[in-house]
Amino acid sequence: MIAEIVAVGTELLLGQILNTNAQFLAQELASLGIEVYYQTVVGDNLKRLVQAFQQAWRRSQVVILTGGLGPTTDDLTREAVAEALQCPLSFREDVWQEICSYMQRSNHPIPENNRRQAMVPAGATVLPNPRGTAPGLIIEKEGRLAVLLPGPPREMQPMFSDHVRPRLVQRTGHGVILSRSLRVVGIGESALEEKISDLIAAQANPTIALYASLGEVQIRVTAKAPTEDRARELIAPVETSIRKRIGSLIYGCGQDTLASVLGQLLRERGYKLALAESCTGGLLGSMITDVPGSSDYFIAGYITYSNEVKQTLLGVPEEIIARDGAVSAACAQAMAAGARKVSGADVAIAITGIAGPAGGTPDKPVGTVYVAVDAPEGQLVERLSLRGERAAIRARSAKVALNLARLLLLQETKR
Amino acid sequence: MIAEIVAVGTELLLGQILNTNAQFLAQELASLGIEVYYQTVVGDNLKRLVQAFQQAWRRSQVVILTGGLGPTTDDLTREAVAEALQCPLSFREDVWQEICSYMQRSNHPIPENNRRQAMVPAGATVLPNPRGTAPGLIIEKEGRLAVLLPGPPREMQPMFSDHVRPRLVQRTGHGVILSRSLRVVGIGESALEEKISDLIAAQANPTIALYASLGEVQIRVTAKAPTEDRARELIAPVETSIRKRIGSLIYGCGQDTLASVLGQLLRERGYKLALAESCTGGLLGSMITDVPGSSDYFIAGYITYSNEVKQTLLGVPEEIIARDGAVSAACAQAMAAGARKVSGADVAIAITGIAGPAGGTPDKPVGTVYVAVDAPEGQLVERLSLRGERAAIRARSAKVALNLARLLLLQETKR
Repeated sequence: MIAEIVAVGTELLLGQILNTNAQFLAQELASLGIEVYYQTVVGDNLKRLVQAFQQAWRRSQVVILTGGLGPTTDDLTREAVAEALQCPLSFREDVWQEICSYMQRSNHPIPENNRRQAMVPAGATVLPNPRGTAPGLIIEKEGRLAVLLPGPPREMQPMFSDHVRPRLVQRTGHGVILSRSLRVVGIGESALEEKISDLIAAQANPTIALYASLGEVQIRVTAKAPTEDRARELIAPVETSIRKRIGSLIYGCGQDTLASVLGQLLRERGYKLALAESCTGGLLGSMITDVPGSSDYFIAGYITYSNEVKQTLLGVPEEIIARDGAVSAACAQAMAAGARKVSGADVAIAITGIAGPAGGTPDKPVGTVYVAVDAPEGQLVERLSLRGERAAIRARSAKVALNLARLLLLQETKR
Repeated sequence: MIAEIVAVGTELLLGQILNTNAQFLAQELASLGIEVYYQTVVGDNLKRLVQAFQQAWRRSQVVILTGGLGPTTDDLTREAVAEALQCPLSFREDVWQEICSYMQRSNHPIPENNRRQAMVPAGATVLPNPRGTAPGLIIEKEGRLAVLLPGPPREMQPMFSDHVRPRLVQRTGHGVILSRSLRVVGIGESALEEKISDLIAAQANPTIALYASLGEVQIRVTAKAPTEDRARELIAPVETSIRKRIGSLIYGCGQDTLASVLGQLLRERGYKLALAESCTGGLLGSMITDVPGSSDYFIAGYITYSNEVKQTLLGVPEEIIARDGAVSAACAQAMAAGARKVSGADVAIAITGIAGPAGGTPDKPVGTVYVAVDAPEGQLVERLSLRGERAAIRARSAKVALNLARLLLLQETKR
C-alpha cells in the first residue's frame, strides 16, 4: 500500500511554521509498513490544491491531507477534495451541534463562519475532534482513501491515532504493527551499529532501526503480527539479544528520559538530590525538573557561576581553585561534596567546564568539562572533551552527568 | 518570479528527520519577494526524482533541490537533474582536487566513491562547499534555474546565503531586500496586530509582518530598494511609527534574546545578577547562561525546590510559607531579597509557581506563578495566570521574569 502526505497552508510555503505534521504522519505510516513516495506542501489556493490532490490520488491508495479545515474562507481543503472527487458538500446539523457544544464548553462565542466546518462531502465519514472545532473527514472511493485532518498537531495527532491508524492497520492486512524503543546513551550511532550489525542484518520481522539525537541513540524494534501478543513475542527475544550485547548502555524505553529514569532510581532508594552547576548554568536543574513530580526527590540546585560563590556557597577550598582551576576534577568533586553537605541531600551531581566560545586554553580547550557524582554508593568524576557549539556542549555535559549518576546508583561502573 | 523547493531523501519520507531545509529556503525566498507555490519531498529513487524535478521545472522559474549530493550510490540528485535537462555529467579534476583538499584538512581518508561528487552536469556552475565534500550546482537553461544544494543544514544554509541569494536578488531585479526584526514581549499577537493594524495596512514597501512564538512576537519590516542605504531609509520612519505606538514592548532587534538584552543592561550598569528559582528549576539560569560572556554579570543561582531550602538558603521566613504558601507574592519577594543578600548581587530575580500537571488548588490553579525582581531601582512582584502544558508554563514564566527585570532596570514600569 502506498500513501501520500499533502500539507495545506500558505504559512508552510512562507516558512512561518515547520511541517512537523508531515514528519509525524511519515513516522506513523512507516511504522505501519505503508510506503510513502511523496510529500507535498501546497498553499491556500483552490486550483492548486485541487491539482495537488488529484495528482496524489492518481498515484497513491491513501492520501492524507492536513490543514485547511478551519472556519475562514481561505480554508479550502474540504472544497478542493469535494470538487476533485465530485462528492458535493452539504450542511450536517449533527456536526454543527458538535462544533457548537465544543465552543460552549470552552466558553467561546459561536461565530457564524464556523458553519463552514459542518459542511460534509457526500459519503464521507466524520471524525470527531475533542480538541478543536474542525472535524476530520474520511472519503472512500475507487478503492482509495482520502483522509482530511486538521492542521494543529494537538488536534491532528490524537485524531490520527484514534480514528485513522486502526483503519489503516485493517486495510494493510498486516494485523498489528508494534514498536519498542530502547534508549541508549554513552555510545555513538556508528559504534552502536557495529556492535549489533549482525542482529540488524539477521532480522526481517521484527526489524531493527537506529535513530540518533543529541548525545543519545534510539534502537527501534518493530514487529508485524496478527495480534499484539504475537508481536510482543517476536520482539522479546530480539530485545534480549540486544541487551546482552550492550547491557547498561540502554537506560530506558519508550518515553523515558535520562532525567525521568534517574528520578525513578532516586525515588526507589528514598534518596534526595542536589545539583551544583557551573557551565551548564541551570540546564541540568531544568532537565531534572522537566519531569512532573520531581519535587519528590529534588531539593536544591546551586548555580555557582563565579569562583567566589563556588567557595562561599559550596565550600570549595580556595587552594583547589588556585592550584587546579575551577575547571578541574578536584573542583567538580568538591562542588558535588559541598552540594551534598550544604543541602543535606543523599546524592549530588556537579558540572564545571568551558562551554565556549571564549575561555579555552591549550591545556583546557573549549569543550573540556568535568562531571562529578557524590552518593552513598561512592564518588565518581569524569573528564569530557566535547565538540560543537556552546549549546551542544552544555546539553551533552548535562546528559553525561545524568548518566553517570544513573550508573553509580545502579553500581554498574568502575570506581 | 516563482520558485519551488524539492527536498530529496528517503529519511524525510520515513519521518526520521524534519524538513527544516524547506522552512529555511521558504523564509529566504519569501524575504526576497519570490513566490513559492509548492514544496515536494521525494525519496532516493531515480525515476521518481526525475519526475518530481520535471514537474517543478515545468511550473516554476527556479527549482531548488536539497539533498542527494553525497558520495553513495543512493545519492541521485546530480544524475536525475542531468538526465531531465539532458546535460551529461563529466568528471571535473578541479572539483575533485577541492574535495580531496577538504578531506585532507579534516584528516579524513579519501574514499574512491567520493569521486562521484566531482561529476558535473554540462554547463553547470559549481558552488564551493567549505563545510563538506558535496559541492553545490547551478544550471541555467531555458531561462530557468536549477539549484542543487547539499542536505546538511550547516552546509546548505551558508551556501545559499553566499552564492544563491545574491543571484536570485539579481534576477528578481528588485535590487536589495532588507528586513529588520523588532522583538516584542508582553503582548499577544492579535492584540499587537490591533495596535498597529493601520500601519500594516498602509504599507506596501516596506511591508510589516508578525510572527508569534512562545511568549514573544516578532515584527518584521521588509523593504525593497535599489540600494541597501535606500532600504534602510524606507524602514527607519516605519520603525519610528511602530516604536511610538508600542514603546517599551519592543525589547530588542534581530538576534537579540531577552536574556542577552537584560545581560547588556546589567553590564552597562556594572550590576551583578543572582537568581532564585522554584518551579522553573534552573530554566531561567539556563537562559541567562546561554548567552556567551554571561559570567561578566551572572554570579549565582539558587534552585530552591523544597520549602526547607527556601528558608535555609534564602532566608524566606517560615511564617510566610505557613501563612501565604510557597506560591505567593510574599514568598517570591522574600526569595528575591534573599538571593540578592546571600550572593551580594545587585539584582535578583525570583520565580515560584505551580507548573503542573499536579499541585493546583482552586485558589491557585496550575499556571499560577509569582515573579519578583529586587534591584537598586526598586522591587517588583507580579502574579501570572498561565495556560498550557508544564513546559510552556515554565518557559513563559522565565520570559516574563526576564522582561520584568528589564523594565525595572529601564525604570519603565509602575512600582
